[in-house]
Amino acid sequence: MKIKRLVILGVGLIGGSLALALKNRTAVAQVVGWSRREQTLLKARELGVIDQAETEIGKALQGADLVVVAVPVGVMEPLFRQITPYLEEQTIITDTGSTKGSVVEAARRAFGRVPPRFVPGHPIAGIEQSGVEAAFADLYQGRRVILTPMPETEHAAVDRVRTMWEQSGAEVVEMGVAHHDEVLAATSHLPHLLAYSLVDCLARMDESEEMFRFAAGGFRDFTRIASSDPQMWHDICLANREALLVMLERFSSDLAQLTHAIRCGDGDYLKQTFLRAKQARDKFCG
Amino acid sequence: MKIKRLVILGVGLIGGSLALALKNRTAVAQVVGWSRREQTLLKARELGVIDQAETEIGKALQGADLVVVAVPVGVMEPLFRQITPYLEEQTIITDTGSTKGSVVEAARRAFGRVPPRFVPGHPIAGIEQSGVEAAFADLYQGRRVILTPMPETEHAAVDRVRTMWEQSGAEVVEMGVAHHDEVLAATSHLPHLLAYSLVDCLARMDESEEMFRFAAGGFRDFTRIASSDPQMWHDICLANREALLVMLERFSSDLAQLTHAIRCGDGDYLKQTFLRAKQARDKFCG
Repeated sequence: MKIKRLVILGVGLIGGSLALALKNRTAVAQVVGWSRREQTLLKARELGVIDQAETEIGKALQGADLVVVAVPVGVMEPLFRQITPYLEEQTIITDTGSTKGSVVEAARRAFGRVPPRFVPGHPIAGIEQSGVEAAFADLYQGRRVILTPMPETEHAAVDRVRTMWEQSGAEVVEMGVAHHDEVLAATSHLPHLLAYSLVDCLARMDESEEMFRFAAGGFRDFTRIASSDPQMWHDICLANREALLVMLERFSSDLAQLTHAIRCGDGDYLKQTFLRAKQARDKFCG
Repeated sequence: MKIKRLVILGVGLIGGSLALALKNRTAVAQVVGWSRREQTLLKARELGVIDQAETEIGKALQGADLVVVAVPVGVMEPLFRQITPYLEEQTIITDTGSTKGSVVEAARRAFGRVPPRFVPGHPIAGIEQSGVEAAFADLYQGRRVILTPMPETEHAAVDRVRTMWEQSGAEVVEMGVAHHDEVLAATSHLPHLLAYSLVDCLARMDESEEMFRFAAGGFRDFTRIASSDPQMWHDICLANREALLVMLERFSSDLAQLTHAIRCGDGDYLKQTFLRAKQARDKFCG
């Protein structure tokens, strides 16, 4: 099932890599790119990521069978409003936002309802680089894509979007919106926040430059995600605020207990905690 | 300057890799290994890490020109006590402990003073694996080793230990004991604690197995250090308690402010924090 006209709104790492993957498999006839920045479009065409560049969003959407909204979650709602007048009957829309509750709410507000052909989605495949220059066809190879269809979503639309992601090399799973946001708060949003917070904490200390010089490989790995795009993570933290605050509270309480154990010299508590953590990590990453 | 008889007390990743590196460069004539566990010694000899295995520590130390104490920091003091009767005049001792204040205090208590031929040291080269099976000759290649000589330490002893580490491929720097412990608390001990705490926090949640399945590459990197040896990190956290508690307080206060900003929707605060962190990390890891 080949996509005739795929429209990517926001041609960055995520949208660009999807386009490249589908083109590689000849799963798409034509890729149209739209972006707020003309330079991005020129770059995307130059790199062969898109076939056609459109700065007028109405023109981009004409005759589209599939639209992928791959912009930061903070600008989903204005973009949804912008495309409302141009959406055609046959067009299926999906998005790639890292939070799903906020995107569904944005759709509800912008379109007046959750459109039956809108399939909320999230490819779990970020890297700390961003922008169309970083796009590559294999980004989704072996990665997971979560779709969170709503009760009002058409089954055929979900199937179409599922097929698209599978053609890009990803494994597709479905779950509820709230569950998605909880899982991602725990495994992605909280770790990013901790990495940013730690690096900033150290950077604001006296002699931070000298300190960083003595950071070993473990620190480099631990803080890699702190090199991610600040604007994007600003958006995500606010968009998934509720679930993230629950996790932050849980984590802060755990850390306070560990701190207490260190202060009191409670070695058993430390050993048990570290051992549980090591066993869990060795199991799921082993 | 070739070492005639190098004695490694505690033949694990750290001590074993040092022995292999020095043997590779023919910087040592004979490597004697001692361990509490006979099986470790058999393994070490089988792997060519040591030339001679000794279970009697007095025999191991006979005629040694250089002794490297590479045991967990929690057992430094009893080991120092154990070797006291056997230390010969010419023997230089160094250690590889991740904390230096606690090791110097252990030496002071065990030997009655800080011996002039004891050179406290710390190779910043840990990986999450441990044990002599994980030892490899290139572990110290391009890594830093910090020596923290005391006022009573003989210059010639420092030079000897410096040369040994340089021959293993490392770059050697000197700093004060307290400064070492602060720098390591910030760049190593706190990150390990955060990684352990996060993984344990998630592991204790309902449906943790399912959650871990959706963890992306960023999470894997972020939590790699949570696969480190629990006993070793238990020792380090208690041995460097004071400096670690200072960092924990600082970090927890920063995290509380970030949490507050998320709760209030203070996007500017988030963006500024994330940007400062990204810039710092890109600069020192760039």
